[in-house]
Amino acid sequence: MKTSLDCYPCFLRQALSASRRAGATEDQQKEILLHTMDQLAGLPGDATPPEMALQIHQQVREQTQNGDPYREAKEQATRQTLSLYPMLKEKVEAASDPLETAARIAIAGNIIDLGVAESYDLQANLERVLIQELAIDSLGALKKALHGSSEILYLADNAGETVFDRVFIETLDRPVTYVVKASPIINDATREDAIEAGIHRVAQIIDNGSNAPGTLLDHCSGSFLGRFHDAKLVIAKGQANYESLSQELAPIFFLLQAKCDVIARDLGVAKGSIVLKRQNLSDPNG
Amino acid sequence: MKTSLDCYPCFLRQALSASRRAGATEDQQKEILLHTMDQLAGLPGDATPPEMALQIHQQVREQTQNGDPYREAKEQATRQTLSLYPMLKEKVEAASDPLETAARIAIAGNIIDLGVAESYDLQANLERVLIQELAIDSLGALKKALHGSSEILYLADNAGETVFDRVFIETLDRPVTYVVKASPIINDATREDAIEAGIHRVAQIIDNGSNAPGTLLDHCSGSFLGRFHDAKLVIAKGQANYESLSQELAPIFFLLQAKCDVIARDLGVAKGSIVLKRQNLSDPNG
Repeated sequence: MKTSLDCYPCFLRQALSASRRAGATEDQQKEILLHTMDQLAGLPGDATPPEMALQIHQQVREQTQNGDPYREAKEQATRQTLSLYPMLKEKVEAASDPLETAARIAIAGNIIDLGVAESYDLQANLERVLIQELAIDSLGALKKALHGSSEILYLADNAGETVFDRVFIETLDRPVTYVVKASPIINDATREDAIEAGIHRVAQIIDNGSNAPGTLLDHCSGSFLGRFHDAKLVIAKGQANYESLSQELAPIFFLLQAKCDVIARDLGVAKGSIVLKRQNLSDPNG
Repeated sequence: MKTSLDCYPCFLRQALSASRRAGATEDQQKEILLHTMDQLAGLPGDATPPEMALQIHQQVREQTQNGDPYREAKEQATRQTLSLYPMLKEKVEAASDPLETAARIAIAGNIIDLGVAESYDLQANLERVLIQELAIDSLGALKKALHGSSEILYLADNAGETVFDRVFIETLDRPVTYVVKASPIINDATREDAIEAGIHRVAQIIDNGSNAPGTLLDHCSGSFLGRFHDAKLVIAKGQANYESLSQELAPIFFLLQAKCDVIARDLGVAKGSIVLKRQNLSDPNG
């Protein structure tokens, strides 16, 4: 998905937010904003939003000498969501369609996104996502694909969201490889974050060799690329995975909340929609 | 009030919104964004937000050859608010304190601000502002000042808001000079907009010689400056007038809604607050 002009103000907001979380001085914050504007001016027309976000957060880490500005927020999110884990499990057990409920829970977890907004109401969002109509509903296709798959490659998104993913993975009842970032970027999950959420008990954890948001294949390790290209079924969580993989011919199911106007427009849904979208293998743009 | 780093993303959003309203092509929109970033990089540290907004909207008008991108939005706002005029008058007539109710109506009108947001819910906002506690309440001081004043200089803000101002002016029961912009900027009221709202029936309309948002004294005409410096009582509507005059030693009452975090922080109130603030003449920063 191409970067929209609407992303420009959002990148500045994100640069400022990240620099403050990293403890930047006012002068450093201004320096980071000015440098972000320089980078935006040089952005190739076909760049995806995660490519720009990668540059911004790299710069923030370098300027502030803070390698993980979202550390505390990530730990807090994982603690909060772990406390919800028993309730989430009960919801799946009581459901008439456990797989659908678990998929909705995984989508609900996608509200924990500090790239898009500074805060979120996890509980209210969960209640909504459990009953809200799917704006794109490939649940039937996912069930069919699961039936024919012996294993699943699961592209993770954010720390805390990991606990919601765990509930989904436990319901999938297939061997799952859970793919995290190689090192910190925004509040995206790393191996450490996934382990804190207990993912290692239900899946094999690997990293993709990159610390870009989403999955920028050009930046990923050879070993991850091998897994990705061999996969018969990929579950990709969150906006950045959609932004970076929406043009790829791969058997992907995207699970996300459309939290900004740009991605909502690209998907052809209303902002705030919940989406379970099968990649269109004949025409990923279709 | 100094421009905050938080204003940077907001300026880009505003530049994009204005260029689209002006009918800019995608290429022109990008050009305007890039030029806005250049201007931001050169912004003096003590510049106020209206100084930057002036540059942005000047650029949009030049690049698109559209001298009044908000024309249609302004006319629509005036039509909508004129239809509310009888109901607003009834509210003042039925009020136990007509001046307070009319002041609240004038503050409610300040939601019609297309610099801050793309849309607003006028009716819901009115109901709220009529009963919401004033976060800064200089109503008693305003009443006292009115008692000792033979005339009032009233610095207008936006088209449509003008109709709410008219209800307030009719309640003030003093000769009022209503100051509009000399030519279009955002949805700020010009003479034409004020006349469409019927202001000429209740006040003398003058312009300030400038088309900056708010009141940038450096940009105003000599005749306006004479009136401003002689005035014994100034009513200044909206954020931009506060942003541009908050450091002036003048007998100003600011009436506004704090619609963004930056101005809310400067005023020491919560975002969404309603404010009727007397300028502190011993220390405007105090």
